[in-house]
Amino acid sequence: MKKLLNDVNLVVDEELEGLVLLYPNVLRRLPNSNIILRKESPVRGKVALISGGGSGHEPLHGGFVGKGILDASIAGEVFTAPPPDQIYSAIKNVDGGRGVLLMINNYSGDLMSFKLAEGMAINDGIQIGRVIVNDDVAVPDIEKRRGVAGTIFAYKIAGALAERGGSLPDVQRIGERVVANTRSMGVALTSCTLPNVGKPIFVLQDDELELGIGVHGEPGVRRTKMMSADEIAAALYDRVSKDLSLRDEDEVALMVNGMGATPMMDLLIFSRKVVKLLHENRIRIFRSFAGSFVTSLDMAGVSMTLLKVDDQMKEMLLEPEFTASFPKLI
Amino acid sequence: MKKLLNDVNLVVDEELEGLVLLYPNVLRRLPNSNIILRKESPVRGKVALISGGGSGHEPLHGGFVGKGILDASIAGEVFTAPPPDQIYSAIKNVDGGRGVLLMINNYSGDLMSFKLAEGMAINDGIQIGRVIVNDDVAVPDIEKRRGVAGTIFAYKIAGALAERGGSLPDVQRIGERVVANTRSMGVALTSCTLPNVGKPIFVLQDDELELGIGVHGEPGVRRTKMMSADEIAAALYDRVSKDLSLRDEDEVALMVNGMGATPMMDLLIFSRKVVKLLHENRIRIFRSFAGSFVTSLDMAGVSMTLLKVDDQMKEMLLEPEFTASFPKLI
Repeated sequence: MKKLLNDVNLVVDEELEGLVLLYPNVLRRLPNSNIILRKESPVRGKVALISGGGSGHEPLHGGFVGKGILDASIAGEVFTAPPPDQIYSAIKNVDGGRGVLLMINNYSGDLMSFKLAEGMAINDGIQIGRVIVNDDVAVPDIEKRRGVAGTIFAYKIAGALAERGGSLPDVQRIGERVVANTRSMGVALTSCTLPNVGKPIFVLQDDELELGIGVHGEPGVRRTKMMSADEIAAALYDRVSKDLSLRDEDEVALMVNGMGATPMMDLLIFSRKVVKLLHENRIRIFRSFAGSFVTSLDMAGVSMTLLKVDDQMKEMLLEPEFTASFPKLI
Repeated sequence: MKKLLNDVNLVVDEELEGLVLLYPNVLRRLPNSNIILRKESPVRGKVALISGGGSGHEPLHGGFVGKGILDASIAGEVFTAPPPDQIYSAIKNVDGGRGVLLMINNYSGDLMSFKLAEGMAINDGIQIGRVIVNDDVAVPDIEKRRGVAGTIFAYKIAGALAERGGSLPDVQRIGERVVANTRSMGVALTSCTLPNVGKPIFVLQDDELELGIGVHGEPGVRRTKMMSADEIAAALYDRVSKDLSLRDEDEVALMVNGMGATPMMDLLIFSRKVVKLLHENRIRIFRSFAGSFVTSLDMAGVSMTLLKVDDQMKEMLLEPEFTASFPKLI
């Protein structure tokens, strides 16, 4: 394992410190915690948004904290849910009197921690809403679908409505609508390495890939021989677009997401085919972009996410925001 | 070699196609060329900015084309200078009557191609200016210093002044001032692989790194045993800050740049130490950010760039721009 690090047991602490040192105008860290706060938290009179989960998916979640998106993120250890007391502490620190929306990716550990924290906050009289993100179509059982890259669409759109003064029910409702209209699927070309383990978490041969990989290396839909970029794009597009029941003249936002060690050249070559498929299927594209937003440590691979947009979502996507990592939508 | 690609001989063509398909509001490609144009080119009455060079450094150069930065980029084959006729064609297509500034990274192949194109354009009566970027302090001989990640500061600042109506001499002058005040240095943890060769271009052992690597794998200052993130940061900081003659109360912009396969976790851990060193040395930080902007295919590694800013540069850095890959400065 070759990584830029100092101590395998301090990677989360040190990366959070790095994040707030890089972006001091926007972010601060709650002392003695793994909580990243929008600097001016709590914002009085605004619904607050919180997300969090295991580390190893950077720039998730801290890269999406800031005016116009999340008010706080809570980082667990690598691939590990954050503890309930930290989530509770984040809620207390962002509540501006109009309630707090928890945006949770659908993993059992995260759900449990957030649920416990929610109970404590409700006891304190804080209004809590909840959006559970489950965009990964690689899992057939909808109840078990994981939250992957599509989560940043939910943050952005709900966060923009909150910034515009939306009520907790309104912000939760639009977040749920985004989730209902978002689908993703990914592929791994390589495994990834947990810093404190030092070897790959699963084995892929040099001529293999795994379609439908989860962001923690959860097994995918199938392991297969290496495919061309166009073949991979077609396989992911097929599954994502069918699950979303896309039809002629529907309009989407497209995110092409690198898994951590994927160069931009590869993302652009992959994107080419995805956009062509959208064109061939007469799907209108509202905005599209490529980058590495929700990653799996040093995994090489890519995921694609489609969000079927409506007018309100489009308006919210173009609202300004001040975060380290949400892309410009141009 | 595991990459997202279709045909090793078509990677440049296909990635450029992908880029314009992703960002059709902002970019277009000149037919039968590797030229990416700002969509509304030529912009009448504005000085135009052009850059280009070998591919394999994505999102350079096309990711920095758009309103407020570059008017065009010309992509050569991987790690190969673009041909003069393409540069000439780009100049013709962006000239809006107030001249064209060529922003050239200091490599002999690029210099030769741009010089030939410049001659042709001058014959046509087009005013041409030139800024040569040479920010890589790993090379002791200043004449031979390569242009690396710092080039995007020059694009951004000169591009903003051009957008504001600056004359060709003014835009060239601020570009030169940026170059005079920008220094970078990088480190490779791994080699990189040319798509049409399929094996690493140099060999680094599992316990080795190369300090001062060039973006084409040019030999660095020294090859050494693996170091901690903090040690690497200190080594790069020492060289960059000394070469820039930084003093108490100087103000800088900091870019931490991944080399292509470097996860954000690693960049943040590295950034932590760089910002701490700036603080310890009482250097003020105007803006700082981390991402992968000027890469070397699938190389794992990092570079740091410092730009000593003045008031006009600061103003230009905060001007709006509409490109795929220039970061938000928050």
